[in-house]
Amino acid sequence: MATKGEQTREKILAEARQIFKRKGIRATTINDLLEAAGITKGNLYFHFSDKEAIGLEVLKREQRLFYDFLDQAFSGKSAAAGLDNFFCKALEKHRQQGFVGGCLFGNTALETSDTAPLFAALVQEVFAEWINVFAEKIAAAQTARQIRTDLPAGELAELAVVTIEGGIMLSRLQKSADPLKRSLETLRRVLELEI
Amino acid sequence: MATKGEQTREKILAEARQIFKRKGIRATTINDLLEAAGITKGNLYFHFSDKEAIGLEVLKREQRLFYDFLDQAFSGKSAAAGLDNFFCKALEKHRQQGFVGGCLFGNTALETSDTAPLFAALVQEVFAEWINVFAEKIAAAQTARQIRTDLPAGELAELAVVTIEGGIMLSRLQKSADPLKRSLETLRRVLELEI
Repeated sequence: MATKGEQTREKILAEARQIFKRKGIRATTINDLLEAAGITKGNLYFHFSDKEAIGLEVLKREQRLFYDFLDQAFSGKSAAAGLDNFFCKALEKHRQQGFVGGCLFGNTALETSDTAPLFAALVQEVFAEWINVFAEKIAAAQTARQIRTDLPAGELAELAVVTIEGGIMLSRLQKSADPLKRSLETLRRVLELEI
Repeated sequence: MATKGEQTREKILAEARQIFKRKGIRATTINDLLEAAGITKGNLYFHFSDKEAIGLEVLKREQRLFYDFLDQAFSGKSAAAGLDNFFCKALEKHRQQGFVGGCLFGNTALETSDTAPLFAALVQEVFAEWINVFAEKIAAAQTARQIRTDLPAGELAELAVVTIEGGIMLSRLQKSADPLKRSLETLRRVLELEI
């Protein structure tokens, strides 16, 4: 069973994640975190040295969750079915959030890349891994002749990732699934993925 | 000739634009603006009621500049040459900035869409206009049989815009032109644009 201290730490991280997604790490104040977690300043500083330490821990957890998501979301009877499944799962994931908060990595990329090298490095790692995994899945579908083979897998993988990030941005802006849905639809057609 | 007051107002807006791009509107404080513009608080509040008013004015100017950019960047001897020119100009524009600051509209979309409806509405308008203009140019190139015609112009236009925004995000994160360059390259191939 978690100790009271562990529970407090978890509470801080859970609340911080929500606020960071909505407001961004930089604009979030220590007071926002205290208020959301319902704790005192002394309590917070007992667990974390500063907001950056909380930000980094939230990002690291999000990274692990996202890698788990990548592991699972590409599953399917064939490589092409795996790609199709990923597109569905990505839309589903963001639909569940009601297009609030968007993608914590994309947000942090835009928010901190000019000013917080530690966050930027982690986010860079996440995008590189995502593109890598995507490229493997695309290459497998190409080998099986299930999608177009005239463009390199790495290039198509990067296109998929930037398209999804851009689509999430527009969907979040419009508070509607439509832009992301259309982006994924177009990606399917562009990949010549037929399921 | 601009009066001293007008000069101060311009100075505030010019400095605010730079800081907003780098830090985001929300994380920028009034003190950041005072320091950058080298003015007093009284001076700033003489010109603007609050940070939101400055943010809105900066976004409106950026919108006008961007519409001018759209007007010019698509020029070319043919519709296809216009598309090609736009891709070159978009890369050039961001290369000149050294991939610092990125796209103020994209940043603001992620930063404020959950919390600042006035900013979100303006940014939505900009993206809608951009997709519209792109769709017209793509449709013209399709009519001239210069690019693929099997997908609707509007769909390809939205793909282009989300890809460019995602590409800018990755380029900004990596402080390298490469991701945006590759995204534009892949877009060209996907559109079957040959120049």
